[in-house]
Amino acid sequence: MNGVEPRTTTAADALVAGVLGGNRLLLARAISRVENQAPEASALLTALYPHSGQAHIIGVTGAPGTGKSTLVTALAQCYRAAGLTVGIVAIDPTSPFTGGALLGDRVRMRALAGDAGVFMRSMATRGSLGGLSKTTGDVVTVLDAAGFDRIIVETVGVGQAEVEIASTAHTTLVIEAPGLGDEVQAIKAGILEIADILVVNKADRPGMDRTLRALEMMLDIEGNGARYVRHHGQLLRVESPVESDEEDRRWKVIVMKTVATDNTGVEELRQRIEAHRHWLMESGELALRQQLRIANTLENIIRAELNRRIAASIPAGRLDELVEQIRRRERDPYSAAAELLSLV
Amino acid sequence: MNGVEPRTTTAADALVAGVLGGNRLLLARAISRVENQAPEASALLTALYPHSGQAHIIGVTGAPGTGKSTLVTALAQCYRAAGLTVGIVAIDPTSPFTGGALLGDRVRMRALAGDAGVFMRSMATRGSLGGLSKTTGDVVTVLDAAGFDRIIVETVGVGQAEVEIASTAHTTLVIEAPGLGDEVQAIKAGILEIADILVVNKADRPGMDRTLRALEMMLDIEGNGARYVRHHGQLLRVESPVESDEEDRRWKVIVMKTVATDNTGVEELRQRIEAHRHWLMESGELALRQQLRIANTLENIIRAELNRRIAASIPAGRLDELVEQIRRRERDPYSAAAELLSLV
Repeated sequence: MNGVEPRTTTAADALVAGVLGGNRLLLARAISRVENQAPEASALLTALYPHSGQAHIIGVTGAPGTGKSTLVTALAQCYRAAGLTVGIVAIDPTSPFTGGALLGDRVRMRALAGDAGVFMRSMATRGSLGGLSKTTGDVVTVLDAAGFDRIIVETVGVGQAEVEIASTAHTTLVIEAPGLGDEVQAIKAGILEIADILVVNKADRPGMDRTLRALEMMLDIEGNGARYVRHHGQLLRVESPVESDEEDRRWKVIVMKTVATDNTGVEELRQRIEAHRHWLMESGELALRQQLRIANTLENIIRAELNRRIAASIPAGRLDELVEQIRRRERDPYSAAAELLSLV
Repeated sequence: MNGVEPRTTTAADALVAGVLGGNRLLLARAISRVENQAPEASALLTALYPHSGQAHIIGVTGAPGTGKSTLVTALAQCYRAAGLTVGIVAIDPTSPFTGGALLGDRVRMRALAGDAGVFMRSMATRGSLGGLSKTTGDVVTVLDAAGFDRIIVETVGVGQAEVEIASTAHTTLVIEAPGLGDEVQAIKAGILEIADILVVNKADRPGMDRTLRALEMMLDIEGNGARYVRHHGQLLRVESPVESDEEDRRWKVIVMKTVATDNTGVEELRQRIEAHRHWLMESGELALRQQLRIANTLENIIRAELNRRIAASIPAGRLDELVEQIRRRERDPYSAAAELLSLV
């Protein structure tokens, strides 16, 4: 390291070479550039993209209190024991001001520290989820290009936006736990439907049987193995009558029990994820999910670029004038928006 | 009602007249048009906007299990007793498929049913929060134009997007409760900072003292009465040294205790909200919040329109081709996005 040269001036091509060459320091730096949407982020991603596409992406989502972080740590350790490398992207709901990851990767990283086969990054939501979906996808692309075999994207599945981030994965785990409150239960019902694998963690807690029965009933109602497609940013369920031979080719969502704190059921979970991966490849479903992921990426890039153009093309003074006119009810925001759009 | 004419053909001007004239059926219909982004939504909002601007908007947010809905119902009843009318917009995290409001307004509406001075609408997040912020603002505009004195926007404050919806209010209440889990606590810490008034509901529950102490400590750390501004969709804290006379003009965030189920503390809460309203008007802060709200509205309208243009101008076949080329790693999404943008 040259102490004279500021860290921020590392050129995009040096970062690309570092990421592809397995340099953890440059990988961390490349991810920071992408996360902060630095000027060289676009060049970085364009160069890294052709090297991505090998990793299997695992989305993990669940309500607060289900023990996701502990489970993700245990799962990463199982993958390491099986000889595979793991990248982890954890989306933390954090203060819009402090910026820090309150839920913290400090505790769990202790278990994974010092292992070059694991790379973890916590990303704070920082007040707005608007750009988070794009940034998360970009960070996954960097880790994928860096050669990690499995990439786990962990989100607190409470808002639908967070769910959407996890649902761009190849395999989506929804984590439940016994004995959470009613409102949390209702939120969980909304995210159940994106699950490829349902996990009841903290399975040693009271209320387990009730939770299990409720989930199995829900699965029954929802129609096990239904197909979902993304259309204009919404998940849609394809309701086609099931032929008996088609039935066999469908993925069966099952409920798995784990106790992440003592590794109970975690290796079985890993095997189930791998089984899903094989099913995706054999059924042709993988290509469909890749297409959805790419369409989503394109949409996010376009949206980010349009936002940039709007910010660049609207004179700040004119915006302030319009806002003040609208505030005095001399104008309405719809005609004002039309005027601003004519400037883009 | 003419049974021959389908309900959906009610012209925008008839709806506008209905909303302004206090017709609840037409108000409900107008809100539905706005919520579903029907073709006439834009005309409706343009016509109603000049009649809005009188209502005081109260954002209510809090983690799952804090009893927000019960508190909002009790608060609405207090406002009714004080002779004011109340509109309620409740954002429910729901299934992207069933669409229905799982948390439901059925239970609580029983307490408010039959009162023409209250109008409540539940809005489902339906798989994507992208358009929700705009739609919520639009529904608030309709209720405002309809003449409701106070409009309460209730969200589950777990994702930052939901928090953002509540924070476009004039007065923001953050609801806490004793004895929630650690992860929920951490999430709450993130939303504390948008509070104008902090409410510990379920104050009769065990753990109350500990929660209260924790909150008061946090308030102390965060700097009571700091100012926040919205900048490019992010809330920023203005860190200016406090002059002793400026100190007096600041709003003091205090912690209030309520037990919504038996109305304990709810009337005091209502009076505190009104005190905040008067402070906003006297301090000049109201104009600032209105400006932020309008800038946010403008941004949302522009974003929605650009999304519409993108969808309309990109040939579906070309998009599919590009996605397939990217999937085979023959192209990268960044150059493909540039091509698609050239078509908009």
